[in-house]
This record gives sequence, structure tokens and C-alpha cells, in this order.
Amino acid sequence: MNRRRFLKSATLATGSAGLTSLAAPALAQNKLTWRMVTCWPKSFPGIGASAERLAQRITRASAGRLTIQVYSAGELVPPFQALDAVIDGAAEMCHSSSYYWQNKSVALNFFAGLPYGMTMREQSAWIHELDGQALWDEIYAPFGVQAFLCGNSGNQAGGWFRKELTGLDSVKGLRFRTPGFGGRIWEKLGATVTNVPPGEIYPALQSGTLDAAEFAGPFNDLALGFYQAASYLYLSSFNEPAQGVELVVSKEKFQALPEDLQQIVRDACQAETDQMTNSYFANDPRALKTLVDQHGVQVRDFPEDIKQAGAAAAQEIYAELLASEDALTRRTAESFVDAMRLLRGRSESNEGLYIQTRAKYFTL
Amino acid sequence: MNRRRFLKSATLATGSAGLTSLAAPALAQNKLTWRMVTCWPKSFPGIGASAERLAQRITRASAGRLTIQVYSAGELVPPFQALDAVIDGAAEMCHSSSYYWQNKSVALNFFAGLPYGMTMREQSAWIHELDGQALWDEIYAPFGVQAFLCGNSGNQAGGWFRKELTGLDSVKGLRFRTPGFGGRIWEKLGATVTNVPPGEIYPALQSGTLDAAEFAGPFNDLALGFYQAASYLYLSSFNEPAQGVELVVSKEKFQALPEDLQQIVRDACQAETDQMTNSYFANDPRALKTLVDQHGVQVRDFPEDIKQAGAAAAQEIYAELLASEDALTRRTAESFVDAMRLLRGRSESNEGLYIQTRAKYFTL
Repeated sequence: MNRRRFLKSATLATGSAGLTSLAAPALAQNKLTWRMVTCWPKSFPGIGASAERLAQRITRASAGRLTIQVYSAGELVPPFQALDAVIDGAAEMCHSSSYYWQNKSVALNFFAGLPYGMTMREQSAWIHELDGQALWDEIYAPFGVQAFLCGNSGNQAGGWFRKELTGLDSVKGLRFRTPGFGGRIWEKLGATVTNVPPGEIYPALQSGTLDAAEFAGPFNDLALGFYQAASYLYLSSFNEPAQGVELVVSKEKFQALPEDLQQIVRDACQAETDQMTNSYFANDPRALKTLVDQHGVQVRDFPEDIKQAGAAAAQEIYAELLASEDALTRRTAESFVDAMRLLRGRSESNEGLYIQTRAKYFTL
Repeated sequence: MNRRRFLKSATLATGSAGLTSLAAPALAQNKLTWRMVTCWPKSFPGIGASAERLAQRITRASAGRLTIQVYSAGELVPPFQALDAVIDGAAEMCHSSSYYWQNKSVALNFFAGLPYGMTMREQSAWIHELDGQALWDEIYAPFGVQAFLCGNSGNQAGGWFRKELTGLDSVKGLRFRTPGFGGRIWEKLGATVTNVPPGEIYPALQSGTLDAAEFAGPFNDLALGFYQAASYLYLSSFNEPAQGVELVVSKEKFQALPEDLQQIVRDACQAETDQMTNSYFANDPRALKTLVDQHGVQVRDFPEDIKQAGAAAAQEIYAELLASEDALTRRTAESFVDAMRLLRGRSESNEGLYIQTRAKYFTL
């Protein structure tokens, strides 16, 4: 979409009458225009394209009665002020990932994903079939917002490394860009973890300020050019087995919508939960082929001792969360762990085992 | 829902004015009532409940402008006449699985699932991101209908066996109820394959007419009581790695809907694609626990030589389909195989590997 048009409509919307007074007459005329701020740069593949599709689904299914205008990171507010924009009323919705807001509650991490946590499939079952959604609602309630799961990247890549990892010993002192709980795991493994904004990862790898960096996976990472500075790509992240994406909406405004529009928003979010993963599944392997065939990238699996030490480090983090002083964090951790115990059995004895069996015996 | 009310409304709808004449005035009044016939018995867990939810999503999101009434198998037409009912205009939609209609085109099998075929995740990516949907539309076009993916059971169970399988030798002469391509695989492995309607499986196992039977998985099979006649449950079916579920709609009537209602139907179907799988993920492990703890069921994985022979037999079936005399079947097979080659790489090196790694190292 056109940036100038975006900025113009943003100015009009915020400049005219203020949000709450705008909403009521618009609703009376049976037309609402809502602003969706996002954490993603303009034309960002995968997750950014998904935000655009989500907006289109809602706009089309409501025949424009609820028109959603999407603002890329920085167009209306900086990326990490997206949630505050919804809380303050500068936007009606934000498209983000819950772990960005862990300064509001550490329990929000569970709705994006945890090291050695749930797969996208298990996460969706926890949220929609078990008590995930109720807990998420409870965590966001004090902020006057509510969230819907609206996407998932699926299992991400473990990271880009300038040198091949030979085992746990080779992690010591490694300057690794990997944020959040994943970073804490690698610190426990001996790495020196730093956080660098996505746009600065490539130059830092190139100059040698970083030895390794993790962002998303082949589809997103190809566009960011990491392969020019680091040749070893470790697939299958144990730190980000899934990344749940959320649509956070002003609770008051959402509850004031007629029931049909509420249902339209919910269905659009759940449809896009399927579709965003489809897009990563179709595009990651194509990007990987380009990386390997055209750029000589070496694909690796983490050495076993690193995976094992990573699991031990993750167990310490779960133990901390289960013993949190905050009762809601504790309850969320308990629910997450109980759900994962239940659901991983299905993953292991069905999908997981089938994928292994097919890999072993079926070539075509 | 109440059966009598169903039958009454069905009689009214078919008895009044005929379908096409009914549709137009109803549309003019901005209200449509559409009949969704299904292949599932009343109150059928998982797949049947999903049909009900799908109808509710559409009805609610359209504020009743498109009200969907669900008819269980036999209420309006017998289960395996559901598609013909849509083709003939006796219903507007059917909730089914494409392989039931392989007498219309063998290529329809690909949209439900094939032995050693795609996982639910790969199938959704093929349909929504690659050329799956276009081929599906082309196959159904001569029948005046079009289909939307609206659910998936995920990986099913391999089957219930009265005696433990010790290897490929123990398959010889085994009287096994397993329909479709799965049945052809087991025939190639030496079994005597028969088809028996779901309601007759349990008595046939009990009387010894059958040595083994396959239906769905723990959640559905617990209700059908198979455990009372067969103690060995083999999980992870290589024959049904996924079962895609479809909403088939009269193409003319769907295309005549205003665009917002079309979008509502599409989003409801894709939302339910996620939700049906959630329901199997949450309920299969609970049912499995009941089967093991309360009914002493022994859970097994198929012996390696059976899996390997199954893969070889599946390869013969793919070779047949790729060499089909019907050009559209050939093209669909080629598309399916190409897509699976692309997508299985993502499954194997990401989700699949992660599930294995977690199983190996992470206990909580």
C-alpha cells in the first residue's frame, strides 16, 4: 500500500475529532474505520503480509462496515509502541507478538512461544481448546485490551553462525544476537548474548562484532542478507519452536461491536492462523534452496550436547516461571506445562513419528 | 440439535417452492437459509462437531443473512449421497471428505489424503499457497460445485488389532477393515481387506469375522468401543497421515452470493481447518489415557518391516496415479508430488526434528 495515503488517512483520523467521538457516529452510520498498527517494516514477507491479509479479510467480510487500515512499524507509532497505541486509543488494534510486551507481564511470553515449548499446533490447541485464551484474556484485562491468536511462523531457524559449531565447547564466548528467553538459554550455555535491532544484524555480522545471529528463518532471513556474512545456518530452533502472532484489540471497542462483526474478526484471525503458517511452509523451503544452491549456505543441525544443555537451561527457566511471585504468571506457567504434557504425546506418537517414518522409507 | 425440528425444516424447505425459486426471493429479502448435509452421524465427536461449528460461524458472522442448517447422515439424504444432494440441488452444501467421491474422479483422493502423503500442515499449504485449490476447482467444475478445505483430523491411528503384529509375516491372511488406498496397501502386504460400515466394525471384531480394523483415532474410536474386542492400538498411520475435510458448495449459488458472504464462508472454513485439528489434538490424548488406564489397551508402533513394505506399496500407487490415463488425475498427482517434495523438507528439518529433540531431551 501507498505510504503517503497511509500517513494522510492517519493524520485525518487522529486530527479530526479524537477517537471515541469518531467511533460512535461512524457506528451509527454502520461504517467504522479502525487503525491496525504493526511491529513489522513495510512489505515485510510472511508476518507483515499476514497483517495485510487479516485486514483485508475483515474489511471484505464486513463489506467495509469495519474497514481496517494497516500501518507498518513507524508509520503511526514506533514498532515497540504498538500495544501502548491501542491502550492509549491512538489505534484500535495492533498486530504483534506477545513476548514484545513482557515488560507488562512476563506471562505474555507463553502466548508467543517458549524455548522447548509448544509447537504451533499445540499452542493453538492450548489457546482454543484448553484454558489458554481465558488466561490470555485475564493477563490483558488490566490494560483494557484483549488478544486473538492470528498467526504463527511455525518452528524457526536456530541461527546463522560464522563458524561451524563443533559442540558445546565452541559456544563459549560466542557473541550471539538472540533476544528474550532464547538469549538467556544461550547465556547459560556460555555465549555472550547481545540484542541488536534487525536492521543492524547484517553489518554487525559482516564487521565481526557478532559471531552469530538468529532472526526468523530462510524466508525472512534471505531478504535480510545474513548469508553474505555467515555461512552456517542451523535449522530447527529449540528456542523458538513456534512464534504465535496476536491481534490485540481495545476491549471496550471490541465488545461494543455488533456480534456479527465480532465473529468476523474472530474467524479472520483463526483463518489467518492457518494461512500465515502456510506461507512460511511454502516459502521457507524455496528460500532455503536459493540460500544453498546460489549462495553456498551450509545447513546444519545443532550438535547433540548443545541441544541437551539447551534443554537443561530451559528447564531452569520453566522452574523459575512455575515459582514466580506473580500468581497469574504461575497459573499461566502451570496451564502451559500441563497442556504441553497432554499435547506433546499426540505430536510425538502421531505427526512426529509419521514425519520420521516417511523420511526413512518413502522417496519419490 | 433436535432431530424432529431438522426433519420438519427439511420437509418445508424441499416441499415449498423448489430450490432455485426459493433462493432468489430469499436473497432479495437479504436472508438465505442453506442446508448443509453431512456424512457424519448425529452428535459425532470431532468431525461432526466441526460441521456444527462451521454452520454457526457462517450464521453468526452473517447475522443470519446466510443461515446454515446442518443435517446429520440420513436426516435428509444417506451419508454417501451428500455430494449428489448438492449437485441435484436438494442441499446447498455438504460437509464431507473428498475421497468418498472418488467414483466421480480418482483425483479427489488427493484432497483428503494419501498413504505416505502430506501432513495436514503440508496439505493446507498445497491447497492455499500452491496450486492445490486451482486443481480442486477444476476437478469439481464439471459437477457444478466447488470445495473449500474446512478441517483436518491430522494423523490418524493405524488400526486396532486383536493380536500383536510381530512383523510383516504376521500380516498374511489378516482380515482387516481399512477402506480406500489404505486397503490396497494392506492387500499388497498380504492382508485380506474388507470394507464394513462403521457401525458394524465392533460386532465383526467381537465375533472374529475381522482380525483388525481402522477407523479414525482414540477420540472417535473410544466412542465406538473397539477396545472391547481388540487390545492392540497401533498409532501413527502411514496410510492416513491426514484427513482433509471439505465443504462442497453449489458453484452457481456460491458465486451468486454477495462478496462479503463469500468471504465469510471462506474465512469460516479456514478458521475451522485450524479448529478441527485443535479438537483432535486436545481430545485424542485424553481418550488415549482412558483407553490405556481404564481399558488396558496396549499402544504400539508398527514394526519397521511393515512400514517399509507399506512405503514400497504406496510408491506403486503413486506411480499408477502419475501414469493415469486421465490427464487431470495425472496433473493433480504431479502437483501433489511436487508440493510434497517441497514441503516435507520444512516438516523434516523443522517441526519434525524439533518434536524428536524435545522428546529426547526435555522432560517436565
